[in-house]
Amino acid sequence: MSAPLQNDLYLRALLRKPTERTPVWVMRQAGRYLPEYLRVRKQAGDFMTLCSTPELACEVTLQPLERFKLDAAILFSDILTIPDAMGLGLHFEAGEGPKFSNPVRSRADVNKLPDIDPGTELRYVMDAVSLIRKELNGRVPLIGFSGSPWTLATYMVEGGGSKDFSKVKGMMFSDPDTMHALLDKNAKAVTQYLNAQVAAGAQSLMIFDTWGGVLSPACYREFSLRYMAQIVDGLTRTANGQQIPVVLFTKNGGQWLSDMADTGCDGLGVDWTTNLSDARARVNDRVALQGNLDPSTLYASPERIRDEVKKVLQSYGDGPGHVFNLGHGIHQFVNPDHLAVMVDAVHEFSVRSV
Amino acid sequence: MSAPLQNDLYLRALLRKPTERTPVWVMRQAGRYLPEYLRVRKQAGDFMTLCSTPELACEVTLQPLERFKLDAAILFSDILTIPDAMGLGLHFEAGEGPKFSNPVRSRADVNKLPDIDPGTELRYVMDAVSLIRKELNGRVPLIGFSGSPWTLATYMVEGGGSKDFSKVKGMMFSDPDTMHALLDKNAKAVTQYLNAQVAAGAQSLMIFDTWGGVLSPACYREFSLRYMAQIVDGLTRTANGQQIPVVLFTKNGGQWLSDMADTGCDGLGVDWTTNLSDARARVNDRVALQGNLDPSTLYASPERIRDEVKKVLQSYGDGPGHVFNLGHGIHQFVNPDHLAVMVDAVHEFSVRSV
Repeated sequence: MSAPLQNDLYLRALLRKPTERTPVWVMRQAGRYLPEYLRVRKQAGDFMTLCSTPELACEVTLQPLERFKLDAAILFSDILTIPDAMGLGLHFEAGEGPKFSNPVRSRADVNKLPDIDPGTELRYVMDAVSLIRKELNGRVPLIGFSGSPWTLATYMVEGGGSKDFSKVKGMMFSDPDTMHALLDKNAKAVTQYLNAQVAAGAQSLMIFDTWGGVLSPACYREFSLRYMAQIVDGLTRTANGQQIPVVLFTKNGGQWLSDMADTGCDGLGVDWTTNLSDARARVNDRVALQGNLDPSTLYASPERIRDEVKKVLQSYGDGPGHVFNLGHGIHQFVNPDHLAVMVDAVHEFSVRSV
Repeated sequence: MSAPLQNDLYLRALLRKPTERTPVWVMRQAGRYLPEYLRVRKQAGDFMTLCSTPELACEVTLQPLERFKLDAAILFSDILTIPDAMGLGLHFEAGEGPKFSNPVRSRADVNKLPDIDPGTELRYVMDAVSLIRKELNGRVPLIGFSGSPWTLATYMVEGGGSKDFSKVKGMMFSDPDTMHALLDKNAKAVTQYLNAQVAAGAQSLMIFDTWGGVLSPACYREFSLRYMAQIVDGLTRTANGQQIPVVLFTKNGGQWLSDMADTGCDGLGVDWTTNLSDARARVNDRVALQGNLDPSTLYASPERIRDEVKKVLQSYGDGPGHVFNLGHGIHQFVNPDHLAVMVDAVHEFSVRSV
């Protein structure tokens, strides 16, 4: 039996219900800018040990809530847990980001990817979700997440991060059938993974499509959006009588927000390259919007940060459906006190009568 | 006395005059995908020697014209010649891209940047332009170019390439006066540099704003577009009775094309994340458009490349004002024969009665 939720601003905002003020959380809020995170990270030894040890993942998930008046917690994990569970050999090289020892380069490689059971191979994620829910004790809702099928595919085919995505786009253009087979496999795995997170206690879901924005409009629809829509269709949308809002976020996807809203998701993440007023006009208030302060704004003075928070709130305008966030993850070298200024400013400037 | 221009399709298209077919050239057409380029590159020893030796820069500029039916040549050079001439210590580290030994981090650093005389410190560029014009002998027009003030500033402040631009954006948000001082200095230098290229023989100009797309709409206007507009205002727009068309290209700037057209430039580069039909609607036929095939398309089969070329041409639609190009530079590992397929397809599919 879970403790009743004391703060449901985040869930209400995503369902476009009135809220007393704009809820706020921050992408990568449990991260390297926090000294207390770095201590646990060091204790864990390496990043994947931190992700795969439920007690440690739970500890860092809760850290930012102790410092800042945030309205949601997000599971501490990595977007590459699924391909790791598929046996691609995820590892992290110093200063280089994630690498896969066994990248996917052919139809044979795709065909031999195993179907994974998230309750088994990714048991550690579900255990972390359950533990975080218990430790949260109803303070704020917990967000579960996954990478999008396309974004996972970029790492799986490139064997790591990329600048021009030549290998994954090479496969997309020269062998689209293989690319679709891979994306379909990813979409099925992501659907099961997210549903398992809901079963374990996640109260909202987010799909990170970090690299959908490197595609043309036609390729975005065919190779990224289509599979996110397939996932949205397959997700558990209620649990214990509560709706489970789903948010899609394509970085650099500002031009496609209307297409994204057509998937039937509840909310869309927006990066800072699109004004929220334009974003809202494009989606015609069909979905909630989450964003969109440039993370680099947190290098500015407190006064400037407060001004920029005000501009984001004003850009969204009146009415429900806004969740304040950065437009991408918080940077490693930001002063945590500056994040406090941002969070407090959201509290101060967004109070409204409902 | 220069030879008369035998093929002015590129210049006419940029001035939105009728053309018998759509002209085509390719960003980075003189580059590492060509074995003949690699030979000269090796002969030069290092990249900046290649850029700063007019005979070698001329040789590689002309190489792609021997292989492909291209309608323009573009000066072989680097966007970082200006900060190099300012004394920042440009060098290239293996596999790491450009680096500056003396990055700009403070107002004092900005204040001590020297005013450069492009005819002196960048004489090698002007000598290359003159030599290329002579060797072109009127075959096609020669494009001169520069990086945008903002894009130059990103490298000058970061000290090289960047993923999150935290240093340059940190300066922009925390010390906007210093950022404006740097951008103003860059804009003056770029204006003089481009005008010197025209005096040396450049017949069209292009400003590459590779990193303007990482800004919010408001910051883009204040820190990138404003300085490109200042440059456009200061450029020599005719030489020897010929108009010198000016093209601006902000990668990931699809949402701001209308603002960019307001600068009074003649054409805009468009990357593949925006359909040309949408781009054309946004600029309302005030300027020509250049683009926009995803460079990764060249990894596809010849049949698929031809289909994709057709789609780009159809997306632009009827009427003058289109220059075919990739949406960004050609990749290093593309088969040159695939570029030939693309160029030939533009010739084949774009024939029209004028």
